[in-house]
Amino acid sequence: MTTLASADARFAPAVHRDRLRRAALAAAARGIDALLITPSHDYAYLLGYAAPAMERLTCLVVPADGPVALVLPRLEEPLARHALGELASDLEILAWDETDDPTRLVQSLVGAARRVAVQDQMWARFALRLRAALDPAELVPAGHAMSELRGVKDAEEIERLRLVADAADRAMLAITGERLSGRTEADVSRRIRELLLDAGHDDAGFAIVASGPNSASPHHAPGDRTIGAGDAIVLDIGGVRAGYASDTSRTAFVGDPPPDFAGLYAVLRQAQAAACEAVRPGVPAAEIDAVARDIITEAGYGETFLHRTGHGIGMETHEEPYIVASNAEPLVAGNAFSIEPGIYIRDTWGARIEDIVICTDAGGERLNTTSTELYLVD
Amino acid sequence: MTTLASADARFAPAVHRDRLRRAALAAAARGIDALLITPSHDYAYLLGYAAPAMERLTCLVVPADGPVALVLPRLEEPLARHALGELASDLEILAWDETDDPTRLVQSLVGAARRVAVQDQMWARFALRLRAALDPAELVPAGHAMSELRGVKDAEEIERLRLVADAADRAMLAITGERLSGRTEADVSRRIRELLLDAGHDDAGFAIVASGPNSASPHHAPGDRTIGAGDAIVLDIGGVRAGYASDTSRTAFVGDPPPDFAGLYAVLRQAQAAACEAVRPGVPAAEIDAVARDIITEAGYGETFLHRTGHGIGMETHEEPYIVASNAEPLVAGNAFSIEPGIYIRDTWGARIEDIVICTDAGGERLNTTSTELYLVD
Repeated sequence: MTTLASADARFAPAVHRDRLRRAALAAAARGIDALLITPSHDYAYLLGYAAPAMERLTCLVVPADGPVALVLPRLEEPLARHALGELASDLEILAWDETDDPTRLVQSLVGAARRVAVQDQMWARFALRLRAALDPAELVPAGHAMSELRGVKDAEEIERLRLVADAADRAMLAITGERLSGRTEADVSRRIRELLLDAGHDDAGFAIVASGPNSASPHHAPGDRTIGAGDAIVLDIGGVRAGYASDTSRTAFVGDPPPDFAGLYAVLRQAQAAACEAVRPGVPAAEIDAVARDIITEAGYGETFLHRTGHGIGMETHEEPYIVASNAEPLVAGNAFSIEPGIYIRDTWGARIEDIVICTDAGGERLNTTSTELYLVD
Repeated sequence: MTTLASADARFAPAVHRDRLRRAALAAAARGIDALLITPSHDYAYLLGYAAPAMERLTCLVVPADGPVALVLPRLEEPLARHALGELASDLEILAWDETDDPTRLVQSLVGAARRVAVQDQMWARFALRLRAALDPAELVPAGHAMSELRGVKDAEEIERLRLVADAADRAMLAITGERLSGRTEADVSRRIRELLLDAGHDDAGFAIVASGPNSASPHHAPGDRTIGAGDAIVLDIGGVRAGYASDTSRTAFVGDPPPDFAGLYAVLRQAQAAACEAVRPGVPAAEIDAVARDIITEAGYGETFLHRTGHGIGMETHEEPYIVASNAEPLVAGNAFSIEPGIYIRDTWGARIEDIVICTDAGGERLNTTSTELYLVD
């Protein structure tokens, strides 16, 4: 048997009640008769505890109008009631036995629905089975109905994001203060995970260490390469604390950077700062991407900026809103996202700078407060 | 940006070529024109590396007849090529850019298909989008086409399962040799995770510590309860080493168990042993469940055995074949699964014994070799 690694994102019961109420309103506003939410960050956001995503169906049913119900395997019931605490009394809890068909229970709850939204990450095996059970209802992804709720962080969520960003910053300062040459990427990555935990993360999620030519691969997996003089090193690190994620990147260089790398880095730093400064409510996400991309393109590096400028962050490291050319949605106050342009010269070197930024009425506020200069290391 | 925690389950390229070939045959045998495999254990099983499941679509396309293709975001391409090594030359690799629609690429590969199977855990948002893009093709879960491949372990996989089971056994012996009373469940759980890592796990997946009345909750989350005299303690622990999972449960008791607990435990131990001894090729999974359940039921505890007898194990802690009353499929040599009956007296106490068993031509072989007696602890 398995349990989830801690993904504790519990708030006061009144907060979760309010989220359930707003989820129902968001469904109603989209002509959705019910939301079906399987274990996921959406589930934890609504109920305040993380259930394991597994082959036994657990499904929170949030009708646009009517009582909220939770369908779950009987052996999960004690854990769920314990985790829900006083919130349990708000839900109709329907436990199924090992040889029951749980999709029938869901059908009994939403059988008359014409349009049902399923959690984006629901397993296809459940989605296809529910589609058959609920026929002729239309099945659509819950997508925006949930992401619009989660995309706007309240003050307590922003405080958690601030604390976890601060923890990541301390880990970043610690690792860039150590001697890196002579160590392998994998060794440095392991060390960063220790530092992330030491700084207060509950879970050290990831620590990309991409050195030398590997720094040109945005998602490089740290390996056996030994870091040495003349290497650019992209450090992209983060984890989770109290249910909220950190994610920050800085670039280091072993020894003195040659003029072409220094030039490239100056362009990148200017682009990243300009994108952060462009943040304010009402600006389309695509425009933030364009601000960074235009500066990089004008300097002749357009083709080397291989990815979007950023992604929303909260309980998940990647969530809405995405800061990408195809996202015309305007930013709203309370959005939290990364701004992380990069320049990658294949087989040679690369650089990335990443901060988490909150969109406030007064503009963009960076949660990462370490210097964005190139870190010169031994 | 994020990377997966290590899920290295790499074998020789010839092994992965053979798996891809057998996946195509399994599809053909079921009238499936193509398998669409998003990042998951199925993906890692076929390709030998773990890609992150994320909002950007990565999809391995295995036609029943024709060349295998891999659709992936362009920024993942360097990492994928590096991870695939020489296997990359067997695949058509199609990279998409941030503003492309990757479902169109999949459609271009399988546009003429009439029946397409999607990986069981594919995110619903992708499955629903692919269903629209591939209309009028029927979309079904890949389910058995993949699980029948993965359910039969080869000698090298069994060796990995043996090594990781041995590591879990060492952690179990270590924790049951420590003084447990006076410590909280959460403290003991943290200690077990250390012991799992010390014993050679790459990842300490879970450590259920359910004490006193909590032992009656099969999936109890270790908490602040302090262990004391007269407590039953269910310990259910496991993790991953070299891509393969361990999972073992033993029950401990602080001090001398009263006769009613000792009696209950004797029934459980007999049921667990009998189920292990019943394992051989050709026996339906349901029959193994019945062997354990009948003994427990005859002793008057039938209602308290809240869950199935076991689950398959391999790269995932829970996979096919499930040892449950509803599974009439016969066991085959090479199946690996848990046998873990439990007895749970609500609000009082509970017990569980769990071994990983391999079905061989000569019968069931236990990979966990620690004693199944009740562990008397201080």
